[in-house]
Formats: sequence, structure tokens, C-alpha cells
Amino acid sequence: MDELHILTAAEAAARIRRLVITSEELVTACLARIALRDPVVEAWVHLDPDYALEQARAADQVLKAAGPRGPLHGVPVGIKDIVDTARLPTENGTVIMRGRRPAADAQVVRNLTAAGAVILGKTVTTELAFFGPGKTRNPRNPERTPGGSSSGSAAAVADCHVPLALGTQTAGSVIRPASFCGVVGFKPSFGVVPRDGVLAQSAPLDTIGGYGRTVADVALFVSVMAGGASPLTLPLSPSGARPRHPLKLAFVRTPAWGQGEASMQEAMLLFVKNHASVIEEVAMPADFDDTGGLQRAVQFRDIARAYGPYLDHYPHEISAKLAEVIGIGRGVTDDEYRSALARRDGLNAALAPLFERYDALVTPAACGPAPKGLGSTGSPAFNFLWTYLGVPAVSLPLMEAEGMPLGVQLVGAVGRDAELLEVAGAVMASSQ
Amino acid sequence: MDELHILTAAEAAARIRRLVITSEELVTACLARIALRDPVVEAWVHLDPDYALEQARAADQVLKAAGPRGPLHGVPVGIKDIVDTARLPTENGTVIMRGRRPAADAQVVRNLTAAGAVILGKTVTTELAFFGPGKTRNPRNPERTPGGSSSGSAAAVADCHVPLALGTQTAGSVIRPASFCGVVGFKPSFGVVPRDGVLAQSAPLDTIGGYGRTVADVALFVSVMAGGASPLTLPLSPSGARPRHPLKLAFVRTPAWGQGEASMQEAMLLFVKNHASVIEEVAMPADFDDTGGLQRAVQFRDIARAYGPYLDHYPHEISAKLAEVIGIGRGVTDDEYRSALARRDGLNAALAPLFERYDALVTPAACGPAPKGLGSTGSPAFNFLWTYLGVPAVSLPLMEAEGMPLGVQLVGAVGRDAELLEVAGAVMASSQ
Repeated sequence: MDELHILTAAEAAARIRRLVITSEELVTACLARIALRDPVVEAWVHLDPDYALEQARAADQVLKAAGPRGPLHGVPVGIKDIVDTARLPTENGTVIMRGRRPAADAQVVRNLTAAGAVILGKTVTTELAFFGPGKTRNPRNPERTPGGSSSGSAAAVADCHVPLALGTQTAGSVIRPASFCGVVGFKPSFGVVPRDGVLAQSAPLDTIGGYGRTVADVALFVSVMAGGASPLTLPLSPSGARPRHPLKLAFVRTPAWGQGEASMQEAMLLFVKNHASVIEEVAMPADFDDTGGLQRAVQFRDIARAYGPYLDHYPHEISAKLAEVIGIGRGVTDDEYRSALARRDGLNAALAPLFERYDALVTPAACGPAPKGLGSTGSPAFNFLWTYLGVPAVSLPLMEAEGMPLGVQLVGAVGRDAELLEVAGAVMASSQ
Repeated sequence: MDELHILTAAEAAARIRRLVITSEELVTACLARIALRDPVVEAWVHLDPDYALEQARAADQVLKAAGPRGPLHGVPVGIKDIVDTARLPTENGTVIMRGRRPAADAQVVRNLTAAGAVILGKTVTTELAFFGPGKTRNPRNPERTPGGSSSGSAAAVADCHVPLALGTQTAGSVIRPASFCGVVGFKPSFGVVPRDGVLAQSAPLDTIGGYGRTVADVALFVSVMAGGASPLTLPLSPSGARPRHPLKLAFVRTPAWGQGEASMQEAMLLFVKNHASVIEEVAMPADFDDTGGLQRAVQFRDIARAYGPYLDHYPHEISAKLAEVIGIGRGVTDDEYRSALARRDGLNAALAPLFERYDALVTPAACGPAPKGLGSTGSPAFNFLWTYLGVPAVSLPLMEAEGMPLGVQLVGAVGRDAELLEVAGAVMASSQ
């Protein structure tokens, strides 16, 4: 029973359903793991063991009385602390909201609890889900950042505190921490998971996703968070988007390649070479040459609107880097904002021929391994384009550099999330 | 001897020269005043009584041996802590430069010591001479800001710690604190006082000026700081710009008027009414309707260039409001910057007819009395236009509101500093 914390969500859910283990035993094991490891990792900001065990015991009783409520019955999950929870504080990573207690759960939390999940606790986010680091350390090396903004969620899953944890991405906040911590991170297509009750940073960009230790787990997790009618409900329908066999993947360096570290570039090119039978290098369409500033214009202007009032009212409680971005965002004109958003459809159309010919794009998940130090959460250079486009992306822990994990990022076409996850599962299986 | 600290600089210099008092006695009195009052006012950031007394005793010896070195022989002065001094630290108001010890005195310090002045100590500046408040309190009411960025200099002169103190202005950093603290503040024409060895914020705007308790004192002080050949050397030459008699002054509300508080507007209009024989209201030329953003574009872009690297390297040591401005400044294009500067000559030309018909412009020095609290140093709304134009401006403590002082600002034509000071002296004399 000591090792229950290492179970995947799918394994755990199956054992609970079959009454092999109880949710209480699983949650107890996770809490023990947290007690052991969190003094170093610091992935959690609000944890109430009594509340977690109370949910677990209730799940065990419901199961015996009425059967499982849903596919995550009795399975503990971590919730990023920008997602409202009625029974635990939600502080959005800022002292401005210290002790804030929302009146209601976010929709995504309701979807999880409706499927039987146990809300284990709230995980550390950066300041307002932007760049200001929280306290979390990389479990693979506590001298390095776990990435951000979903710092605690990625670290908690990587360190087996919990099998699943919610992350959100506006630039690179799901995929980058997944790469740095060595877990599977999945950012579904824009709009798949409902955002009611979640801190709003940028309406056209904010996307909820999640972390697990297998592709199947993140697929299960995100489909539950999506609340039913989602493009990634598994198993795939017979008419569904099952990938061709053998796989055919397009390696794209993207305009971010030059920002990559040498160790990452080497590892990526080796990965491509080792999978030469299914991966070929393709150039990005020329339309993408000048897209570097589009996501930034949208995000920074929206940050200025969303967080500018905090800076004006609580200047001493906002970090300098966020304040700088508010300043930059205040300089983005309505015209620039609209123009930046207007290019999105055209760019997705320019990608369509690639998705006709290939099952997915392959590209780095981050510039390099997790940077040393906790002062920065690293660069989202390999992420923000995909967030802007609204396409699904998944990071797979298939590379290493400097003794640290490094993610291979797979990118799919908008709305074809299930197909991307099938491809990801196949790539994982063929690489392990 | 107890009351020597209340002497004006001119009185003190005369008494020292005539051997009525010694510099040591005067400096001792100022140090006693500081010891009594600075625990509340906190105007000083670096004060070394031994070093001050050492200079004073040397001045007394030189005087007896060789006569006065210059017009400030033996007179103590305060130096804003963005001006390099070799014998005292110069920290520029930021922890990033804690303990910084420049190798040499700034040119303006050399000019002062060459004229016999005693460098009493370094006065508190806001963070990098921008808006982040220092520790200084308003001596008239310690619950209120002294204004900034020359916070300590204005407060020290107002509270009779020292007869003269150096201030600098890039937006409203000399004139606003003068208004809030109730002293005479003088910002000469752009370029009058040399800036070598002074923290650079914005090359086209940074201007060194000073505080005293009389117009004659600031005239004497700034002429010494200018180092000789300056447009304000007093007494005026026979060909000089002696004002017409009687005075004729133009009250201009300027586009900032709407930002003024009601108490200030009332006091200003009453002042104009009480001086109806010499002041008439005049509208600003229409050219000025859209000038609100010009100074800001120049200052903020230059701040981004000058201080951006500090934000990048020391993000935790830069205040959020400064970081925001760095962000805004990074969004100012070279074209916008050049366009903003290009309008300056035309605007000065548009003012020329006013200066033909009037001895000076009269306008508020600040939006209202010193704001309550120490979290902000108040608004430079009534100052930045004049800084941008490079015209001389002086604040006279001739109004009150809420039991606090309020300055009348007089503005002259570029280069006609001596005439402006003559006018200011006449206005002071006629109002007291």
C-alpha cells in the first residue's frame, strides 16, 4: 500500500472501482508522499488533509452504495490555485488576494467532482499565472525551476504527489513545466475546457489543460474537465480520427529554433534522427516568419486590462516584471490588438496542408532543460505560437539534457485533440 | 548661536565673510537642527558630521589665511543623492546601488566646493529620481509626502536643516516638492548647470536646480552650480533683462488645469484676483492643446533605455511603477520619440509673443497641497510641459490650502533666467 501514490489515474480508478483499494487508501498514500517530499518541492499552496480524506471516505461509501459516479471516482487531483474552489482558498498567486475564499467551485471543478474526483488541494501558481515565480522547486533538481505558471501542478505530478493536476496556458504555462519536470502535459484546443470561475488573463488565449504521467491519463483527465461533449472523449468513435499507420510526423523548427539551447537542439535532432522512419523535417509556411509578436500583443494588452487595476491600487504587491508587461500592454493599441487576432484564422489555414500530410507536428517543448535557479520560470518561446493558434499540443518526456528531462512537443490541428492524443500515445509507446 | 540654522545662504555667507560667525558654528547649528528634526523628517540619506565639520574648519582657516574662495564660502549645502560625491556614498535611491562610492565629485559639486561651499550631506531621492518614494516626510505635516524626486532637498531646506539644497527635474521633481514643502524652488533653463557625474534619466530633459528659502538664495546657489558663465549670473549686467515696471504677468491655466484640485484652483484664482493690477489671464496658444504626451514619450523612452537593464538584471529591486514605465517606454518607437522632440522649438516659438507682452507666465506649481500619505509623491501635471520646453521655472510659497503650502509657479523664456528671478523677487516682495 506504500506505493499507491505511483499509480496512474487510470490504474487507480480501475482498482478503486473493482474495490481492490479504497480512495481513502490512495489519498492517504498521496498525503504521505506529500508530507515526505513537499518540504523540498513546495508544490502545494493550500492542502487540507482532513478535507481530502473526507471526500475520499465519501467516495468509498458512494461507490459501495451506488457505484462509481464517473471515470475518476475516488482519484485525487491537484487544482492550480487560479481555479476557484469553495472549500479551499484561491489566491491566484498574489498577496493581493491572500485568504480569498470564492463562494463557489469553478465549472471545471464541478465537472471533476461530478466524475467522482477528490480535490486533494491547490497547487502553486506564479503571480497571477504570469511570470513571477512561486515557491515550487523542480522535483528532479530542487536548484532548478519547475517552470510556470502551472509550477505546482507539474511538480506534484512529476513527484508522484498526485496522479493528475490541472494546468492552464496563456503563453507556455502547461507545456513548458511539463518539459522541465518530465511529465506529460496536454493543452487541448482552445475552448475545450470551460473557464468559468478561473482567473481571466486573456480571453482569446487562456486554455485549461492538465498533467499526468501517461498520455492516457491526461486524455482521461482533460475529457472529464471538459464536461462531456468534447472533441477528445475517449475511446475514439469508429468514425474518429485514428491516425494512419505507420505514423507520419513533420518536424518543424519554427522561428523559435534560434532561441533554443545547444543541448536541446542536439537532443531534438537526435530524437528526429532516431525516428527517421516516421519523422521528416518540414519548413514552416512563410506566413509564420513574422508571427513572433502576435501572441504577445494579445496577451500583454489583455494583461494590462485585467491586471492594470491591481498595479494602480496595489503597486507594492505587483512584481516589477508584471508591472513592466502592464506598461507594455498599455501601449498596445486597439488596432494592433485586432490586427494580431485577425491573423489567426489565416495562419491556421496555412497549416492545414501540413495536417493533411502529417499526423502531427513535432517540435521542442522548451528552449532547454529547466534553467538553474528559482528566479525565472524559463522562456515560452516554443509555446506561445501554438497557444495563439488555439491548436492542441502535448509535451512528452522523451528527451534529456544536463541530466534533466526535456519534452518533445506534438502539435495537432484545431479540434482534432483525440487524434493528437492517439498519435502521442503511439510515439510514447515506440520511444520507450 | 542656536538660531544660525535659520539664516539664509546670503546672510550666512555675509556673516562668515565678515568673521561675525564661523562656518564651524553655522554647520554645528545645522547639524543640531538635523539631530533634532531628522528623526521625523528623514531628509538625509548620508550624513557624516565629522566630514562636514572638517570642511567647515578648513573653510574658516582658508578664510583667515587667504580670504573667501567664492560667494558660498563656509555655507553648508545639501546634495541630492543622484549626484556623485567622492567622500559620501551616492546610491541614486535604489538598493541596487547600495553602498556605491563614486571615484570623483560631479562637476556641480566641484563648482560648489570651488565657491567655498561645505557639502553637508546627501539628501533623499526617490528611486532613480523617478516616482518610487523615499523615506522623507513633509516637515509641515509628517503624514504627507514632501513630493519628489528631490524629496530630501526640499524638506531639508523647508525645515531649516540647511539653507540650500540641490534638486533635479526631469518631469516635476524640483518645482513640485518646493510647492509641497513651502520653499523657493528654481529649475533654470535646460543646460545651465552641468550634469557630468549626475544620474542620467533623460538627456533632453534632466535639469539641475535648487532650493532655498528666498529667491536671492536660489539665484546665488544656481549661479554657483552653473560654474560661472551662466545666463543667471547676478547681479544683472546693465544690458540685462531687468523687468519692466510695473510688472505684467500672464496667468495661464494650461491644459493641466482640469487636473488641479478645487482647493488649489480656488487659491490660485484668489492669488490672481489679489494681484489683478499686474496679472491678467491669457489662454495658452492652441499649439499646446495636444502636448500632453510629448514630455512623457521622451522621458519614458529614455527611462526604458537608462533603467531597463536594471529591471532585467535586478527585477526584485525595481518598483512596480518604475517597471510599468519601463514597459511603456519600451513601446515608444524611435519615430514617436523624434516627433515628440521635434515639436519643442515650434512650441517655444509659439510662446514667444507671450514673453514679448508679459514678464513671466503665472501658473500653479502643483495640483494641490502635498497629498496625504507617503505612498506617492504627487502629480507633476503642472510641471512636465515646462521641463520639456526647457524654460526656466520657479515656485514661490505664496499660497495655502488645507493648512499646507502651495506654490505659485512663474515661468520665463528660455535663457532669460535672470529676468525670471528678478520678477520672482518682485512678486515675493509684493506678496509678503
